Amino acid sequence: MTFRCEQDFLDLIDRHFPDTPGSARPKRGDDCCIVPRGSNLCLSTDLFLDTVHFRRSYFHPEEIGYKALAVNISDVAAMGGVPKGFTMELMIPDNMPDDFWPRFLTGMSALARKHDLTLGGGDLSRSPNLGVGMTIWGEPGPSGRFLARGDARPGDLLFVVGKIGLARVGFYSLEESGNAARDAFPEATAAHLRPRPKVAEGLALASFPQVRGVMDISDGLARDLPRFLAQSQAKGADLDLSYCTSHPEVLLYAQNHARAPHEVVLLGGEDYGLLGACSPESLRALQASLPELTVIGTATNLPGLRLHGDPLTLPGFDHFTS
Amino acid sequence: MTFRCEQDFLDLIDRHFPDTPGSARPKRGDDCCIVPRGSNLCLSTDLFLDTVHFRRSYFHPEEIGYKALAVNISDVAAMGGVPKGFTMELMIPDNMPDDFWPRFLTGMSALARKHDLTLGGGDLSRSPNLGVGMTIWGEPGPSGRFLARGDARPGDLLFVVGKIGLARVGFYSLEESGNAARDAFPEATAAHLRPRPKVAEGLALASFPQVRGVMDISDGLARDLPRFLAQSQAKGADLDLSYCTSHPEVLLYAQNHARAPHEVVLLGGEDYGLLGACSPESLRALQASLPELTVIGTATNLPGLRLHGDPLTLPGFDHFTS
Repeated sequence: MTFRCEQDFLDLIDRHFPDTPGSARPKRGDDCCIVPRGSNLCLSTDLFLDTVHFRRSYFHPEEIGYKALAVNISDVAAMGGVPKGFTMELMIPDNMPDDFWPRFLTGMSALARKHDLTLGGGDLSRSPNLGVGMTIWGEPGPSGRFLARGDARPGDLLFVVGKIGLARVGFYSLEESGNAARDAFPEATAAHLRPRPKVAEGLALASFPQVRGVMDISDGLARDLPRFLAQSQAKGADLDLSYCTSHPEVLLYAQNHARAPHEVVLLGGEDYGLLGACSPESLRALQASLPELTVIGTATNLPGLRLHGDPLTLPGFDHFTS
Repeated sequence: MTFRCEQDFLDLIDRHFPDTPGSARPKRGDDCCIVPRGSNLCLSTDLFLDTVHFRRSYFHPEEIGYKALAVNISDVAAMGGVPKGFTMELMIPDNMPDDFWPRFLTGMSALARKHDLTLGGGDLSRSPNLGVGMTIWGEPGPSGRFLARGDARPGDLLFVVGKIGLARVGFYSLEESGNAARDAFPEATAAHLRPRPKVAEGLALASFPQVRGVMDISDGLARDLPRFLAQSQAKGADLDLSYCTSHPEVLLYAQNHARAPHEVVLLGGEDYGLLGACSPESLRALQASLPELTVIGTATNLPGLRLHGDPLTLPGFDHFTS
C-alpha cells in the first residue's frame, strides 16, 4: 500500500482502531488526547526499532505490531495495573511492501482489542529506519495499588511468573536459522515473537499485600535481579533455577551450543515474565491464585547473587554492551 | 562522552534532571512512572528525528534537546493546558561526538526547568539514526477546561498568537546558507531553532469562554486551517494576512526568492503559533489580555479559503509529500 499523503495513513489507522461514539475513548485529531480524571496513572514508554529490537527477515509484520504493543503492556502488568490506552509514534521509511502497514496494524489492533485499549493519538513521520515508539498508561486494579520494584527483605522468597530463558533461545535460534527455527523451537520462537504480557498475573499479585515488589524481566534475570534488589532492604540472593532450566527447548539449545542451561536462563530477557518477592508464609496462597508462579531463590542480607551456593559472575545483558 | 553502559547514560540524565526528595515527581527507575491525576490529563506524543525534523549541520546539540521538548510543550499549550511532565525515548547512534548528549540534555533541561516539568521516565536504545520520541502530559489551568480544535461558527474571527511564517524563512535560510543564516535572518532562524511554546497564551485563551477553539500551527496555516475548520460549523474562511506578511525578514526572504510573502506565511509551519477562533464581540477583551493576538480573517459558511477575496489554492505542507 502506498500512501499519497498523511491522511491516507491516518484513515488506515482509523480502520484498525475505529472510534466508538460515546465511548470513553479520548478524541483523536486534536493536539492532545484527553485521559479522563480518575485514579493515578502509571505510564511507560518503549522503543521498538528495526535491527535493534526486531528483524524483518523473520518477524512477520503482524508480529512487529503485536510485540511493539506487548512489551509496553508488560510494563503496566509489572505495576499490577490495568492498561487503558496508548499513543504511538510510527517511523515510516520509503518503499515498504504494500501489505506491511495493514498487517502491522492488524497484529497490533488484535492485541489492543484483547486488552480493551484505546489508541489515544500519535505521530507519523518519514524516517530512514523503521521503528515504533509507544507510550502506554494504566490504572490500578481492584486492589487500588500499584506494585513498585519494591522492598524485598532478607528471607523473602524470590519468584518468577512465566517462563524465563525461552525467548532468548527463540531469539538466537531465529538469528541462526531464520524462519526454520519456528519448527525446531516452536515455544521458544513464539516467546520471542509474540510474548504474552502478564496483565492478569500482575493484577493477582497486586491483590496480595505480602508481595513486596514486582518488575518485568526484560533484560535477563542476571541484570534485572540486581536492579530489583537495589531498591530493597535485601542485598543479595541465593538462587535455585532447577525448574527454569528444565524446559526441553532450553535444554536442547544449551546442549547444541555446549552452554550450561542456567546461563541461557540467567541471560535471557524479553520473556516479559514477572519477577517478584513475597514473604515465605504467603507462598501457598499466592500459588493457589497463580499456579504458574515459580520460586527461584531467597533474598539475603549477604550481597551478590549465588547459584546453588556458588557466587554468580555472569554479565547481564546491556543494550549498550551486547 | 562515551558510555560504557546504559547506567552511565542514566547517570548523565539524572544529573540534568535531578530527583527532588519529597517532590511530586514520579519515581523513575520503575517499570512505569506514576502520574497523579486530580483532574483530566491531556497527553501528546511527537517524534523529532535527525534529517527529518532537524539537521545536525546547523542545529546545536542544545537546540536539538530544546526543540524536541518545545514542540511537545506546544501541543499542551494549544489545549490551554499546563504541562506537567514528560517521558522521552532516545535513539542513540554510535560515534556521537563526546559533548553531544551533555549539551543536548543541557538545552532540554533548561526548558524543562522553565516550565517546572518532571521527567517521568523513558527508554534508551542504540539506533542507526539519531532521534527523540517524547510524550508529554498536562493539566487544565485555572479555567478548568481544555481548548479543543473547536467549533468556529460563521462570522467568528480567526486569529493567530505568535508570528507565522518566520520559522519557514529560518528553515529555508539555514538549508541554503547553514549557520551563516543566523546572522542574515536572526529572528527567523531563532524561530526555527528555538520556537517558544505559547503556554501562557494558551492558558489566557482558555480563560475566555468566547474562544471557540485553538490548535497549534505545526504544518503551516494552509494545511492546519482546513483541519481546524473540519471540526467546526464554519466551512471556510476569508483571510487577510497583511499583518503577518510585514515582517522584514519575511519580506527580505520573499524578495530574494521572488515569492509572494503570503505564500511564505501560508506554507510556513513550525512557528508553533496558536490558531484560534472567537466571537467578534470578544476581540477587545482578548487583545487586552493578549496584545500579540492578530486577526487573520473571518470564518464563513462558504467552503474553501479565500485570500483578500480570491480563492486560495496553495498546497499545504505534508510530511508525506514535501
